[in-house]
Amino acid sequence: MLGARCLLRALRSCSTAPCPRHRPSARLSVRDALGSQNASGERVKVQGWVRSVRSQKEVLFLHVNDGSSLESLQVVADSNFDNRELTFGSSVEVLGQLVQSPSKRQNVELKAEKIEVIGNCDAKAFPIKYKEKHPLEYMRQYPHLRCRTNALGSILRVRSEATAAIHSFFKNSGFVHIHTPIITSNDCEGAGELFRVEPSSKIKLPEENFFNVPAFLTVSGQLHLEVMSGAFTQVFTFGPTFRAENSQSRRHLAEFYMVEAEISFVESLQDLMQIMEGLFKTTTMTVLSNCPEDVELCHKFIAPGHKDRLEHMLKNNFLIISYTEAIEILQRASQNFTFTPEVAAVDLLVPGVGELFGGSLREERYHFLKQQLARSGLTEAYQWYLDLRRFGSVPHGGFGMGFERYLQCILGVENIKDVIPFPRFTHSCLL
Amino acid sequence: MLGARCLLRALRSCSTAPCPRHRPSARLSVRDALGSQNASGERVKVQGWVRSVRSQKEVLFLHVNDGSSLESLQVVADSNFDNRELTFGSSVEVLGQLVQSPSKRQNVELKAEKIEVIGNCDAKAFPIKYKEKHPLEYMRQYPHLRCRTNALGSILRVRSEATAAIHSFFKNSGFVHIHTPIITSNDCEGAGELFRVEPSSKIKLPEENFFNVPAFLTVSGQLHLEVMSGAFTQVFTFGPTFRAENSQSRRHLAEFYMVEAEISFVESLQDLMQIMEGLFKTTTMTVLSNCPEDVELCHKFIAPGHKDRLEHMLKNNFLIISYTEAIEILQRASQNFTFTPEVAAVDLLVPGVGELFGGSLREERYHFLKQQLARSGLTEAYQWYLDLRRFGSVPHGGFGMGFERYLQCILGVENIKDVIPFPRFTHSCLL
Repeated sequence: MLGARCLLRALRSCSTAPCPRHRPSARLSVRDALGSQNASGERVKVQGWVRSVRSQKEVLFLHVNDGSSLESLQVVADSNFDNRELTFGSSVEVLGQLVQSPSKRQNVELKAEKIEVIGNCDAKAFPIKYKEKHPLEYMRQYPHLRCRTNALGSILRVRSEATAAIHSFFKNSGFVHIHTPIITSNDCEGAGELFRVEPSSKIKLPEENFFNVPAFLTVSGQLHLEVMSGAFTQVFTFGPTFRAENSQSRRHLAEFYMVEAEISFVESLQDLMQIMEGLFKTTTMTVLSNCPEDVELCHKFIAPGHKDRLEHMLKNNFLIISYTEAIEILQRASQNFTFTPEVAAVDLLVPGVGELFGGSLREERYHFLKQQLARSGLTEAYQWYLDLRRFGSVPHGGFGMGFERYLQCILGVENIKDVIPFPRFTHSCLL
Repeated sequence: MLGARCLLRALRSCSTAPCPRHRPSARLSVRDALGSQNASGERVKVQGWVRSVRSQKEVLFLHVNDGSSLESLQVVADSNFDNRELTFGSSVEVLGQLVQSPSKRQNVELKAEKIEVIGNCDAKAFPIKYKEKHPLEYMRQYPHLRCRTNALGSILRVRSEATAAIHSFFKNSGFVHIHTPIITSNDCEGAGELFRVEPSSKIKLPEENFFNVPAFLTVSGQLHLEVMSGAFTQVFTFGPTFRAENSQSRRHLAEFYMVEAEISFVESLQDLMQIMEGLFKTTTMTVLSNCPEDVELCHKFIAPGHKDRLEHMLKNNFLIISYTEAIEILQRASQNFTFTPEVAAVDLLVPGVGELFGGSLREERYHFLKQQLARSGLTEAYQWYLDLRRFGSVPHGGFGMGFERYLQCILGVENIKDVIPFPRFTHSCLL
């Protein structure tokens, strides 16, 4: 195989074989079709899945959705086009003319000239039923099909938009993106909740460990970002993190996404808080502006009243209270609690979601850190971390934002399992 | 702890505590300083690490780099500012006036009014030596410091730019981004090369497996993308994938990044090839336009002659040859090889890098797939995959691009370990 590939590579640039080029197809996404101004009979091809079929005496109405938007495209056809395979859930290709719609419900519709059923849908077995509103909890049983419902479709489009918006925010603010490692040999943090990584039993290596050292799934990219902030000043990562927690709560997953940032030369927690607030607000405004219908669906059907709460958050400055103030408030409330005040740390707490952001200034003083590590017997393992303070150390700090909790916060989705495509938690790893 | 947090949350919106706001600091990144037009004495603060110190009789020249660009900012100061701590590698804060430089080497320079050493650098112990050019292989021993060299700085800035460009390409082409899961229970593909995931020994669950089923690190997001392409038509993922391969070759890692896309309603391999070529060229053009100096550094010092090869790739259509043609060429070459022709599949091979893209059309026919799964005894485990063909199946296909190989390809970096921040491979999991 390898031999053949080397040869193929060598031959690529000297071959004179003709090079067939592809012509773009006339396909139009539903989103683009719906957004077309002054439609006047252009011939287009639309492909998607049937969301509704309504057959009248002489006219057949279809709604076709391809996931490019929440809204479907109305297809109007002669009733002759009706056939038994044209059902809810089936996939179709429609050729026709895009025209202005006489109805007030939509601007454009597709006058069908040809309707082809690409794949039919076994309605009896299909867990999504026509015209029924399925609870999010029910759909969780079908991780391979729930994305075809309006709710999950909207949530996942918002997730995609938010992902892009987060990358843009950091890029526009001069941050360098870093892929911090998923497999790591650092195990100092919360060792009890780690996942261990080992080659599956079929592999036999002479050594005890594939990596020579015990390896774990990352719980945070902070230490690796600290390395990088010593070179690029402002860095961020946005990737999966893991906790082997035996929890099935509506706020916890074994695999979830974190946005983490680390910034050199920060002087105070205010520096961090400003970036946190900017990240939250800029990302949210972008999402609201790019997929308003999707957000509205959630606010309307999943979390009534949530829209006002979100607008309140966006309009106002985040409320900052010190730990001392927080403790005073708690003491006045005279409730039993255990609370450990931290130094130079900041949390952003959101009603209904809990801790959305956590951040802190890091210890940048070599001798102080050395003592701390020595006391914990970690000097050798963390010599590299000490090194960062030995060669041009700078005051620095950073924060992490739980991405799923962020989505819960802006959409009002109660259960974290509904804002991630394939949730992983104790007793569950479907697909 | 929880009690306190719940209470804090409840109290947030009704507290009347004053809200201290942060003023933006006058800090300027080196990149912004260098890019300022018509500098005429603006007072600015620049922070970074000293890349060179040159002390003359009356004048002190420093070069300060903060990782925002390859180029450093020249600081000109009175020789009184010189002190023993102002050395290569130390971190500094410089206050001064940004002025036009009399020298042709740079447009602007910073006339220092105050120089503060933030953290000094133990020059003897620092593995990066002043004015020395360290081979990439040597620097691999120092994954926590190598990002402070010009070469790794440029490579990782390019990696960051390419990441953003890939997200933009897909977003602009109407794709929905999907976080495919890292931990998966699917184990059909190349089971011998999988990493197994288990809670570290400190956790005791009553069940045998945390997830009830054996769980592995993903080798590809393809199957999960196929789920999503059945709802969103065009989807992509860009995340880590894993192989427990006992290989230390310059082209393999145990943890690497893949860009994968899946598209519904594709009719031919040409549809896929067009997107692959678009992804490669658009991303590369964006990188070349956004960080030309970083790319140039690689082409100049790491891979001389590579610039022409890359320009050739960008200017010309990719050469497409069929498997039949490929076999004919190979037979004419009369070399020994083993070669398995695949049906409806496409690979993009690049000189020096090997397989950069691999793509194929998927089996969308229910009955055919059912037979295949039954033959392998996988019907039960992959019922969900069959379901996708039972409920509105569509012809679809997709491809994957190895992100590190892509970077090797555009930069001419020979060893894959130099284009990822923290490489993981057999016997090595540093940090």
